[in-house]
Amino acid sequence: MPQAQPTAVPSDGLTTRQRRNRPLLMVHTGDGKGKSTAAFGLALRGWNQGWSVGVFQFVKSAKWRIGEQTALEALDGLHTQDGTGGPIEWHKMGSGWSWSRRTGSEEDHAAQAAEGWAEIKRRLNEQRHRLYVLDEFTYPINWGWVDIDDVVATLRDRPGDQHVVVTGRRAHPDLLAVADLVTEMTKVKHPMDAGQKGQRGIEW
Amino acid sequence: MPQAQPTAVPSDGLTTRQRRNRPLLMVHTGDGKGKSTAAFGLALRGWNQGWSVGVFQFVKSAKWRIGEQTALEALDGLHTQDGTGGPIEWHKMGSGWSWSRRTGSEEDHAAQAAEGWAEIKRRLNEQRHRLYVLDEFTYPINWGWVDIDDVVATLRDRPGDQHVVVTGRRAHPDLLAVADLVTEMTKVKHPMDAGQKGQRGIEW
Repeated sequence: MPQAQPTAVPSDGLTTRQRRNRPLLMVHTGDGKGKSTAAFGLALRGWNQGWSVGVFQFVKSAKWRIGEQTALEALDGLHTQDGTGGPIEWHKMGSGWSWSRRTGSEEDHAAQAAEGWAEIKRRLNEQRHRLYVLDEFTYPINWGWVDIDDVVATLRDRPGDQHVVVTGRRAHPDLLAVADLVTEMTKVKHPMDAGQKGQRGIEW
Repeated sequence: MPQAQPTAVPSDGLTTRQRRNRPLLMVHTGDGKGKSTAAFGLALRGWNQGWSVGVFQFVKSAKWRIGEQTALEALDGLHTQDGTGGPIEWHKMGSGWSWSRRTGSEEDHAAQAAEGWAEIKRRLNEQRHRLYVLDEFTYPINWGWVDIDDVVATLRDRPGDQHVVVTGRRAHPDLLAVADLVTEMTKVKHPMDAGQKGQRGIEW
């Protein structure tokens, strides 16, 4: 409900416009469905604003191509074709990241996660994108593949107008502490509890 | 995480494949962000499967055009152009629904909500779409503009393979009772609490 009003006015010396356009660090966490889907929905909004959007998909296998990738790449194609919307890049871990030409070892997920994060740091420093989707990035943090202090400092001190959304279960408390917006997706009822498996179009 | 396994095997006489492809009634509720965004993310998955997707946006004013509408209509354009993905229709309340040529009164929201629901019932009966997004449909239900018993019976007894996702705060308990999947988006932290207003690309 975009009509909602702030419940407090801060004394940060910013004008309403400056405060309104302040770049956000968002986290979608919890055990429920919708963490990634909502992040990809945000990518639609960014595309519509003509923003450069970078999606970095951690954890999921390269064999697994989800519908959102095809759809967002189709929107990127419209941008290339006639300048509609913004450019969208989709990079995923699993058999080497898109920007590194070499094929990575499927086994060495830790090294791949670290490589992905190093590239994201470079891009944040260059202000390459306006919106970053770090999908399932909580897992490599929790598994110790990426250093949480480095993540917190990098995201907190990123330059310019760069929005970042991080998804995944069990987000690290230090990440939540620096986030501007945190939503917990809570599972109230799920078909898997009734013995139903995931299905195409719904889970991917 | 699509790797998740069912926690129970039901004795419903269905094969795994039949059970897997059973149409779902999904509800995104709670006070947190991401209810609608996640539903529009599901529309991307449906589009990618070549499904016919119908979005019915309740409550939001017709003057308010969100980024997802532009993006999903662009994807629909790709379908029309060369058959990529599926067709997506976006209908919204506010100055009359898209299918009714007359301009509705801005004031009579109750009648417009009832008209929207009547059309959705017709479409469910005709099996017009494979995925229905009933965005912010919990509000007209809670305000008594649409009869909850009618909603429950219609959605429960809908024919064929039609997935439905309903979004909005305070979903009616009877709706939750018949839903297959319920996610509650809980607000943990929101920039509005720190005095920040909504901004383009993030809230719309």
